[in-house]
Amino acid sequence: MTKETKGINIRDVWEARKRIGHLVNKTPIIHSSILSEKMGRNVYLKLETVHEVGAFKVRGAANKILSLSDEEKKRGVATYSTGNHGMAVAYVAKKLGIDAIVCISNRVPKAKVDSLKRLGAQIEIVGESQDAAGVRCYELEKEMGLTVIEPFDDPHIISGQGTIGLELLEDLPQLTDVIVPLSGGGLLSGIGLALKSNDRDIRVTGVSMEKSAVMYESLKAGKPVLLEESETLADSLLGGIGLENQYTFQLVQKYMDDCLLIPEDEIAYSMGFMMDKHRMIMEGAAATGIAAVLGNKIPCHEGDIAVIISGQNIDLSIVHTVIQDYLK
Amino acid sequence: MTKETKGINIRDVWEARKRIGHLVNKTPIIHSSILSEKMGRNVYLKLETVHEVGAFKVRGAANKILSLSDEEKKRGVATYSTGNHGMAVAYVAKKLGIDAIVCISNRVPKAKVDSLKRLGAQIEIVGESQDAAGVRCYELEKEMGLTVIEPFDDPHIISGQGTIGLELLEDLPQLTDVIVPLSGGGLLSGIGLALKSNDRDIRVTGVSMEKSAVMYESLKAGKPVLLEESETLADSLLGGIGLENQYTFQLVQKYMDDCLLIPEDEIAYSMGFMMDKHRMIMEGAAATGIAAVLGNKIPCHEGDIAVIISGQNIDLSIVHTVIQDYLK
Repeated sequence: MTKETKGINIRDVWEARKRIGHLVNKTPIIHSSILSEKMGRNVYLKLETVHEVGAFKVRGAANKILSLSDEEKKRGVATYSTGNHGMAVAYVAKKLGIDAIVCISNRVPKAKVDSLKRLGAQIEIVGESQDAAGVRCYELEKEMGLTVIEPFDDPHIISGQGTIGLELLEDLPQLTDVIVPLSGGGLLSGIGLALKSNDRDIRVTGVSMEKSAVMYESLKAGKPVLLEESETLADSLLGGIGLENQYTFQLVQKYMDDCLLIPEDEIAYSMGFMMDKHRMIMEGAAATGIAAVLGNKIPCHEGDIAVIISGQNIDLSIVHTVIQDYLK
Repeated sequence: MTKETKGINIRDVWEARKRIGHLVNKTPIIHSSILSEKMGRNVYLKLETVHEVGAFKVRGAANKILSLSDEEKKRGVATYSTGNHGMAVAYVAKKLGIDAIVCISNRVPKAKVDSLKRLGAQIEIVGESQDAAGVRCYELEKEMGLTVIEPFDDPHIISGQGTIGLELLEDLPQLTDVIVPLSGGGLLSGIGLALKSNDRDIRVTGVSMEKSAVMYESLKAGKPVLLEESETLADSLLGGIGLENQYTFQLVQKYMDDCLLIPEDEIAYSMGFMMDKHRMIMEGAAATGIAAVLGNKIPCHEGDIAVIISGQNIDLSIVHTVIQDYLK
């Protein structure tokens, strides 16, 4: 198999690992006895929730920002995001003493906005969608010379997220399947690149919510498409992939073996289940992978599975509703 | 300062670290920006919730069971516990292919009983208190030759829990204060031994619930006392310290600088707060440390604090009630 796609390859992931090591800790992977029992095979959980920002996004953000020139660092950074990426950028920028402006849509949950403010980021709330926030972000780039930190379609972001793949190989060399929440595709591209460069037979399954699954629809159409955003528990997976997508569309096409779409009620049940059985609060996006396991939807039925628990940033009021429905 | 108390010293902790390394992963420590902001000093959380069994107890259990002779391993082990220790023993025994019987009181929450069963342990429910379960456990030792794995008053258990202290020094060499949930004192003895053998100026603060704080009352009385158990959110901290206590009474006396008792409403609030701000589910026992921080009760006011988030095993119905009250 070819190891390179548009200037990004496995060596970039190794470099990212080296570059971000002092800012980003390796995350734990734990065996889930209850999910393993249900599946009749070993199921492991990769806890990206354990980062201080509560989501994997810190990996890509750290890799990107650390690779900027001193001059660029001095001018500062800007980003747009459904929340976790913005938080990661704010967190990394603060750690490195760099100014950061975060543009977000008014659909972003309050818990995320509060956390962004706490991290010291300057926030601009713009319009109804991530795309509108993106437009404002590029205006800031022109007006103030800030560097826009893309949420997913950037080689440094992708190889940063790919460091998860190296940690998976390190802790679970016997891995046969990985289940990855899919939105813009940065996470799946990075993990796919890292795993398949080592063994193309490792199966990579993407999971999204049924509503507004932009990458899924884009792959079906053979090119990036636009979809209207709708309310979903997996709000972290909302957002377009960009009509001018440069990297992730192609990488997801190359590395994803299967794509599963999860209905809202299964996402909600999986969130409740994980709170009940693992005492883990996770956002809907992360629970899509659990839903794929609980619904026995994984296409292949043998070998050890890792589910990427991608993030945990969710309003407590939603947690409350989910538990209430789960306990009914 | 003397490094030895009744045959247990810092070298035992280093040995425990070596012994349990292949069974027990190092746990993450994360900075809490919201607690740090509230305290005006850095507050870190040591996530003992990330073990597969959801609590620190796996460290001591692994160290004890791994140190048994082949003959003892063959005969099997038994234990009594408010739950987390029992779970840890069952988990370690299963990993090592050793038979385990767990005796528990009928006060142990249903979530813990279910988890014990899932781990493949044979369970005996006996009486109203941990002490009653202990009596039955020693009958099993006589009848069947099983080795009783004590929940706390054992040098191998203490030095196993002490490995947390080494990890704290490794990740936070600048640490000045550690906040440790206190029940039988195994956790505090181990951490105190590890930290104070390295620097006697590190302050060790124990935290218990106000109700049935046996170690606290025993220290006041100058000897182990009995207290009746009562309902508390911090049920993991229930249980006597044993009138024949050999190790932990003396070690806690030696290593604990301060002891704080936390009322139930503050435990509940702290659990809700941590779900809201950190999306962490923790049992009441673990939340006592957070309550000490939120209530600004830590006696000294400078330097970096680590709070041991000791466990997360709690019924979802309690989580639900806590959130409901918190959101009011």
